Amino acid sequence: MIDLSLYLVLDPILCAEKGMVQTAIDAVEGGATVVQLRAPDWKKRAFYDCAVELKKALKPYGVPLIINDHVDVAIAVDADGVHVGQKDLPAAVVRAMIGKDKILGLSVSNVQEAIDCDTSIVDYIGIGPIYTTSTKPDAAPPMGLGGFAAAAAHCSLPNVAIGSVKAKDIEPLAKAGCNGIAVVSAICGQADVKKAAFDLKTAWNHAIESKDR
Amino acid sequence: MIDLSLYLVLDPILCAEKGMVQTAIDAVEGGATVVQLRAPDWKKRAFYDCAVELKKALKPYGVPLIINDHVDVAIAVDADGVHVGQKDLPAAVVRAMIGKDKILGLSVSNVQEAIDCDTSIVDYIGIGPIYTTSTKPDAAPPMGLGGFAAAAAHCSLPNVAIGSVKAKDIEPLAKAGCNGIAVVSAICGQADVKKAAFDLKTAWNHAIESKDR
Repeated sequence: MIDLSLYLVLDPILCAEKGMVQTAIDAVEGGATVVQLRAPDWKKRAFYDCAVELKKALKPYGVPLIINDHVDVAIAVDADGVHVGQKDLPAAVVRAMIGKDKILGLSVSNVQEAIDCDTSIVDYIGIGPIYTTSTKPDAAPPMGLGGFAAAAAHCSLPNVAIGSVKAKDIEPLAKAGCNGIAVVSAICGQADVKKAAFDLKTAWNHAIESKDR
Repeated sequence: MIDLSLYLVLDPILCAEKGMVQTAIDAVEGGATVVQLRAPDWKKRAFYDCAVELKKALKPYGVPLIINDHVDVAIAVDADGVHVGQKDLPAAVVRAMIGKDKILGLSVSNVQEAIDCDTSIVDYIGIGPIYTTSTKPDAAPPMGLGGFAAAAAHCSLPNVAIGSVKAKDIEPLAKAGCNGIAVVSAICGQADVKKAAFDLKTAWNHAIESKDR
């Protein structure tokens, strides 16, 4: 299974100045372990062109590229996986298209969705939003740490916590059963992207060490 | 090759009252020869669910279902084809994904795009907008009849004319080398969808007869 510990979700608006690809590279050099391309407002050609560039840029680092929603683009660029939400294509339909070897992630925003997740089809779940998020206007209500723990407890798959997760939230999340943090604004658009990723990764490593102690 | 003579492009807003599937059925009973699902603002699940229903509804009529933009949905529901615009996935990429037996259409809005169209990959082109359209906010400038004729003359593929095409426009379009008309508002949202389709189809048949005479 992939290392979910620091999962970057790219945001076109926050990345406008530095660019999606450079943000991804800097974040990976700082410690990001997964990169997801998410750009729901982009036309498919721009999305595809960016996916092609990201795949090329990430290859030397061995960091997987996950495509949000657009399974066609994932297939076209031979991405490492797909991430879908509850309003995107059904997980079983996606799995049938991408084959058994690709990574498939599913967003879960409450306990029922965690229970309903088919663990024979999906590889990991994204649980959130933990806190109020500004980067996803149509997000479900924030779950908080308790909501996260409840959802995580109802699904045996590895998970990432998403939704305004900051360095200070990492230790309690790790204690609540979190396998990684998915971040948008904590990395995208930061003045020093590499340092932002490094600080989050360091906080994650400390949290895991202190949890295991 | 498919019969392009009356090509219906479904519009979610105009079809809101009657529904996409019922509009398609009524239009086909009136004479529509192709149905395209186009809903750029819909989430992928809603789009997929509608495509599944449309495929089932159109099957008894033998009328092809074409999916706009979302190749993943076209593959998932085994649709008859895909239609892409210049800002969607490249035609060659789509062809590689859907295989050689599916229909592939491409939108063309000027002579250069008609020239650039790879006739070994694409099956038909949609030329337009002919006139100012209200159903596609990001459409290119209207081409008029002269613009249509010029684009059609520069591409050997069958074509449909699109963009506020009404019954009165059919005869001059047919004379200018048109193989069919693609309509949105001339069918979607009309009080009597079946009659609207029938009247357009009748006008098309008359235009072809008068052209051949």
